[in-house]
Amino acid sequence: MLQSQLFTKTIKEAPKDEASLNAQYLIRAGFISKEMAGVYSYLPLGLIILKKIENIIREEMNAVGGIEMKTSVMQNKEVWEKSNRWDDKVIDNWFKTKLKNGEEVGLSFTNEEAYSNILKQHVNSYKDLPLYLYDFKEIFRNEARSKSGLLRGREFYWKALYSFSKDENEHNDFYEKMKVVYSNVFKRVGIGRLTYLTYASGGTFSRFSHEFQTICEAGEDIIYIHKDDYGKGLKMGQGHAAINKEIYTDDLKKDLGLKGNFEEKKAIEVGNIFTLGTKFSKPFDLKYVDKNGDNKMVFMGSYGIGLSRLMGVIVELNNDYHGIIWPEAVAPFKVHLLDLVSDRKESDKIYNKMIRKGIEVLYDDRDKSPGEKFAEADLIGIPWRLVVSQKSIAKDSVELKKRQSDKMELVKTKEIIKRIS
Amino acid sequence: MLQSQLFTKTIKEAPKDEASLNAQYLIRAGFISKEMAGVYSYLPLGLIILKKIENIIREEMNAVGGIEMKTSVMQNKEVWEKSNRWDDKVIDNWFKTKLKNGEEVGLSFTNEEAYSNILKQHVNSYKDLPLYLYDFKEIFRNEARSKSGLLRGREFYWKALYSFSKDENEHNDFYEKMKVVYSNVFKRVGIGRLTYLTYASGGTFSRFSHEFQTICEAGEDIIYIHKDDYGKGLKMGQGHAAINKEIYTDDLKKDLGLKGNFEEKKAIEVGNIFTLGTKFSKPFDLKYVDKNGDNKMVFMGSYGIGLSRLMGVIVELNNDYHGIIWPEAVAPFKVHLLDLVSDRKESDKIYNKMIRKGIEVLYDDRDKSPGEKFAEADLIGIPWRLVVSQKSIAKDSVELKKRQSDKMELVKTKEIIKRIS
Repeated sequence: MLQSQLFTKTIKEAPKDEASLNAQYLIRAGFISKEMAGVYSYLPLGLIILKKIENIIREEMNAVGGIEMKTSVMQNKEVWEKSNRWDDKVIDNWFKTKLKNGEEVGLSFTNEEAYSNILKQHVNSYKDLPLYLYDFKEIFRNEARSKSGLLRGREFYWKALYSFSKDENEHNDFYEKMKVVYSNVFKRVGIGRLTYLTYASGGTFSRFSHEFQTICEAGEDIIYIHKDDYGKGLKMGQGHAAINKEIYTDDLKKDLGLKGNFEEKKAIEVGNIFTLGTKFSKPFDLKYVDKNGDNKMVFMGSYGIGLSRLMGVIVELNNDYHGIIWPEAVAPFKVHLLDLVSDRKESDKIYNKMIRKGIEVLYDDRDKSPGEKFAEADLIGIPWRLVVSQKSIAKDSVELKKRQSDKMELVKTKEIIKRIS
Repeated sequence: MLQSQLFTKTIKEAPKDEASLNAQYLIRAGFISKEMAGVYSYLPLGLIILKKIENIIREEMNAVGGIEMKTSVMQNKEVWEKSNRWDDKVIDNWFKTKLKNGEEVGLSFTNEEAYSNILKQHVNSYKDLPLYLYDFKEIFRNEARSKSGLLRGREFYWKALYSFSKDENEHNDFYEKMKVVYSNVFKRVGIGRLTYLTYASGGTFSRFSHEFQTICEAGEDIIYIHKDDYGKGLKMGQGHAAINKEIYTDDLKKDLGLKGNFEEKKAIEVGNIFTLGTKFSKPFDLKYVDKNGDNKMVFMGSYGIGLSRLMGVIVELNNDYHGIIWPEAVAPFKVHLLDLVSDRKESDKIYNKMIRKGIEVLYDDRDKSPGEKFAEADLIGIPWRLVVSQKSIAKDSVELKKRQSDKMELVKTKEIIKRIS
């Protein structure tokens, strides 16, 4: 893409009404625009990142048999009364609105009810199960405060998968698969090293749920990990585990066979997997007829990831004083080509060659000073920076630098495609 | 896809609470699920169709320089007060909700304000223009009644592009391009023959706007076309035009150089393009500095298509007593392979071959009677039906039938891929 055609402008100063680091950088670099506290629009570069994250998650969900649907934002009161979650006294962060006739309507804050209600109309037999269904959608939660940028939105973009199994055994097999699948997602988007599969409180149907917690100063959760496990994240070995503070005790450590000194870390939940059992299938009468002709309750699980939060966490973990440092898998472009020569001939050639080779490249073809171009490139945070200058041309070369590195390297122009690929 | 893995069930009887043909068929065939009047969820097959329509529109928007963004659903009162469209007395179909602190928030019912507000923060110079930005998003309109299925939703899925031009001339050039681009969209999704570029009422900045009206009994609009032009739709010749009833007069016909007998037709608006001029740039103070250093107002246009409505219109136009007949470009699959032989060997072979060749195929591998399989295939409406039976196998053949045709054809099994491609 030609940067001259990108209308978004970078901003030098952090916006005054924005305390969070992720939102400051994302707004300054032109990825998002603030509509109000906890509500952001995604500008062209921001949408590219959201879609890259979405595609990674979609691939992983489909790999375990997930099937995508698109449920409505507007939610029917009658449906939610079945599970007793309509009343604001039970769920205190509903956003609700009204039809012309005065009837109340809710805005999706989660999806168990919508799915249970739809499946009740379609599932009858053991032959229909198991089922793994998921949505990408806008979710709305009426947070009292919202000042963490993309980390806690009033409106946010979300993936939730629900599993519908014939029984607890079948559920448990899938639940274990989802631990792996979720780990894959967080590794692929570049936060695996600081993300921990974490024991958290369970429900009626399981002693624990599992959270994926990423160590992060801006996080609102506290987890405990062994002091040697910092930075090992999803590669922690057998006999190691992270535990959410809400359930952390010495007895639990013993139960789980964990030894040694555990440390408190601030963390943010980037995903969670939960055994719902028959909590929702019961009120929705979601049954099936098994092989012997008996009626059985469907056994459910839920698996959520906030995509916009994930985007915020990636920024919180990958930045320096100058700006963002995108991991390659989610970066808006692979290469940022900066032209410092006014005639652009050499840069045009390199740009066109890269486009032909399918390399994602943002080409700064604007009339700006080298200093401005360097500063903006650092703020935007594309992984590879390529500079074409009089000096580099004189050596038939381009200057190559990784965003997180200080070292510049002169690479022969004819070798640059191979070097980047 | 194996039909045995598709959890949605077809329904023989139309749902009692659904008067519209499109919703009846789409619900019966398992494409959508009704959440409440005017609000539907998209089941796996329905989502495939919505995405096919979305991809066609995206390709056409990108072809004229469109850049995709993702604006928020939640809308800021202060922003809408600038254009005087916050008050319910001005806009009577807002859905609004409240933050915990009592502040009101709107749900997107259109996007002019959101875009103008964002661009105000980024556009300064003539070098930034023109700009063509678009969103796919959920739109919410508080309709008093909503009983036309996908044709008029309270929540619906929508594409809107806004153009930001330096002046009226530049705007007019793009506006003409969009007539072509919109025509391409409607031709590609298979409704070009009955869709008419239609003169409709303009605004302060243009005598007319243009609607794309599709002749359809379920439509709420009336258009006039020459009696010889029925079925010519977007291929109407020079000197022919359709006119919306709201502005149709003999004087206008004369002005437009139209002659002959015009007939009333019921129609539905599937798209509209509108010259906004400075209606929104003024209240948002959306200016730029031109080449001479003078301040000028940005000149805007809007271009909308409701994707869910389009899906409904396609069904209204393409069906018979037995069910839907999807145009190939938006069909959920190209081929519906029905196996009538219990051992499945021959069908499995054909299915796997098609998958390898990248042909989209739904394979009915279930234990059901031939009658049930035929009826469901007709209801779902996939363009090509392939039947493998004892009889066909005996002749090394498969039975091939187009959904809309009564003629069955025996095709040699080894030739079927070539025949279908």
